[in-house]
Amino acid sequence: METTHVGIVGLGTVGSGVAKILLEQSTRIARHAGRQLKLQHAVVRDLKKPRGIEIASSILSDELSKITDNAQISVVAQLIGGLEPARSIMLQLLAAGKDVVTANKALLAEHGPELFDKARELGRSIAFEASVAGGIPIITSISQCLSANQITSLRGILNGTSNFIVSQMEESGMKFDDAVSLAQQLGYAEADPAMDVDGSDAAQKLAILSHLAFGSRVGWKDIPRIGIDSLDPADLRFATELGYRIKLLAIAQLTDHGLELHVSPSLVKIGRPLAEVREAYNAVSVVGDAVGRVFFQGLGAGQMPTASAVVADLIDMATGRTKITFRTLELWSQREARVDIREHDETPGRYYLRFSVKDHPGVLGDIASVLAQHQVSIASVIQHEPTRDSEGSLVPLVIMTHTATEGGVRQAVEQIELGESVKQGSVRMRVLD
Amino acid sequence: METTHVGIVGLGTVGSGVAKILLEQSTRIARHAGRQLKLQHAVVRDLKKPRGIEIASSILSDELSKITDNAQISVVAQLIGGLEPARSIMLQLLAAGKDVVTANKALLAEHGPELFDKARELGRSIAFEASVAGGIPIITSISQCLSANQITSLRGILNGTSNFIVSQMEESGMKFDDAVSLAQQLGYAEADPAMDVDGSDAAQKLAILSHLAFGSRVGWKDIPRIGIDSLDPADLRFATELGYRIKLLAIAQLTDHGLELHVSPSLVKIGRPLAEVREAYNAVSVVGDAVGRVFFQGLGAGQMPTASAVVADLIDMATGRTKITFRTLELWSQREARVDIREHDETPGRYYLRFSVKDHPGVLGDIASVLAQHQVSIASVIQHEPTRDSEGSLVPLVIMTHTATEGGVRQAVEQIELGESVKQGSVRMRVLD
Repeated sequence: METTHVGIVGLGTVGSGVAKILLEQSTRIARHAGRQLKLQHAVVRDLKKPRGIEIASSILSDELSKITDNAQISVVAQLIGGLEPARSIMLQLLAAGKDVVTANKALLAEHGPELFDKARELGRSIAFEASVAGGIPIITSISQCLSANQITSLRGILNGTSNFIVSQMEESGMKFDDAVSLAQQLGYAEADPAMDVDGSDAAQKLAILSHLAFGSRVGWKDIPRIGIDSLDPADLRFATELGYRIKLLAIAQLTDHGLELHVSPSLVKIGRPLAEVREAYNAVSVVGDAVGRVFFQGLGAGQMPTASAVVADLIDMATGRTKITFRTLELWSQREARVDIREHDETPGRYYLRFSVKDHPGVLGDIASVLAQHQVSIASVIQHEPTRDSEGSLVPLVIMTHTATEGGVRQAVEQIELGESVKQGSVRMRVLD
Repeated sequence: METTHVGIVGLGTVGSGVAKILLEQSTRIARHAGRQLKLQHAVVRDLKKPRGIEIASSILSDELSKITDNAQISVVAQLIGGLEPARSIMLQLLAAGKDVVTANKALLAEHGPELFDKARELGRSIAFEASVAGGIPIITSISQCLSANQITSLRGILNGTSNFIVSQMEESGMKFDDAVSLAQQLGYAEADPAMDVDGSDAAQKLAILSHLAFGSRVGWKDIPRIGIDSLDPADLRFATELGYRIKLLAIAQLTDHGLELHVSPSLVKIGRPLAEVREAYNAVSVVGDAVGRVFFQGLGAGQMPTASAVVADLIDMATGRTKITFRTLELWSQREARVDIREHDETPGRYYLRFSVKDHPGVLGDIASVLAQHQVSIASVIQHEPTRDSEGSLVPLVIMTHTATEGGVRQAVEQIELGESVKQGSVRMRVLD
């Protein structure tokens, strides 16, 4: 049986998981790959740092040259997070003739074109199944299994931290800050979860998926995004009352007017698969013109789910499948984008609006007429009977709209907030069909 | 750009769908395959039969030799159902040097070893993503994306017809026969749906999946199976009352005592992804030791979802990916089975039992003591207050058990039915954890 020699750069959580599978499950891997995968070297920054696995000192090194100078090693899992030195190391590995597997979505979303062009120039391949939705095989599904289709819609819960936090807020009425603390205690959130909860992480993943599915070349920073950091438990309660759950969704929708892309907390009908995704799970709902809707759910992060995806990529590289896919798809090549992005203000949708209004007559009428001026028509309203406590004070007014445009709704809300009976800070969320 | 010449044998529902995609979406397919896929010939039995697509007469033929004698054609979609002449045609295609894509799960479940050995002997490949769960990429996921894992559990809703029928019975209280008629009217069921509703179709698919996931070589006829053909609306109501839905599940569970395989209507907790799969959808829930649980849902049948899977296989063959996967995995080779099958009577599980009992004192006590003799302990009971109508007549007694063995529960029920207060035809269904 032939042997493919493998290197790992970075033995953090994911890297240790990958090493664990390669070292402990070599028989299984050989059976699935038709060849041995031998971990030759693992390069780390600090040799003395304790790691959760037994790894021979002959394998460990703190010099990248152990891998780049070793002609036997043909495939490397590059598992360092962040942009630098991850980018430079990736370029060095490619230049040294290695095919590279990565789980680093930030790196791809930021430097994809440069890295992929360099790989093509050097005749090398890059694989990145683990970069989006961890254990869910969404990259392979889009680029291989659904290749007969024009994909028309992608809706994803792509950030497990946010989903955990929102699930906690909904199920136990917890406030955002308390749910974040719990997520940190349980290891679902980083010490600084800013990129998770503000929608950036989901936008990076959406940028990668929409490049694969639609050939779009939009930068992740140009994707309109709203996070869950300003989510109020009150809206989770109203959503439930209306028959919905709130999920942080990353959405790409192909229309005759271009591709709509956005990340935002959205209302999803209870009973729909996306609505029932709890805890730190990820999910993606894909629609293809031939296949219809296909729904995937799995763990989007964590040591072993992510390592599972990385090792599958290593096996695909060792067998030669990745090389074929990589050459065929010409990802992030210099070709022009295949699709235009639709102006965000023009995207249509139904909306959930919550205003804090002074509890006196005529307010609903005033709001309704401003909405009407912007072609926003009302589908339903929740305005509870005032309680003794609320008299003269602020009460919530919840409005579900019919289909309107993002821009129309935004402008209407801005104008409504100019009125003296309405407090600043109204809530506006998409409602899924 | 290079061209791969493709043949189709059989232009029924799926074949027409495949031809439609190849003819109408050639630009898209070329982009995803990195080469043209040209439909050279489609062979049918009856040239005069009307078909839902425009197809040039130069492509159509009623002679298989148009394909077998054409050296240009390297890849053929063989889309004839049933065992013969499907098997003979497949062997002729392989002998003529063609790689073959098929959607025929009955053929693979029955003649897999023969066909795969022949393909290997001749240096050819077989692809079969469409044979199980149509548009869900479960074959690729198991054999490629989850290859870092030991799969430990597969639970599938693999027969869309049955799922549609059970969903109708549950949602509208319809009887089995009426739900079958509706399914036939809507095109979800064949004129003779016997193989669908008696669990045979699901068992064939489970045999294929468990060969892929566990290396088992069990014949589908040896998989214990119960269909939905004796399902009573009363049990759907009791299940709902208990917080469950009933689904026809195909289950493979790896244990220290061997692989458990069975197909049967089972109770799944409401809110669990499998419980929420409605209409004619299929779903598969897979657990891998690294990835955890991954859940897939999509359309398991129908023209375009199945064609989507067939065309993906054609693309994989044209690019060369299939050849690698086929050689690597050595499916249905002469190698011994990698796993033993656990004796069905020994498999553990919780059970839902419904007895029709004479409405007089002492019956529950008698039943409980027989269950206890067989080490079956009771978790909960539903016995409604007798109504005026029920006095002296038969009333339902529903029992949920703690974990017991299949054999213990079966024997207990047999013994209970010997009692004069209990009617024959008790109901016994698995309850999922």
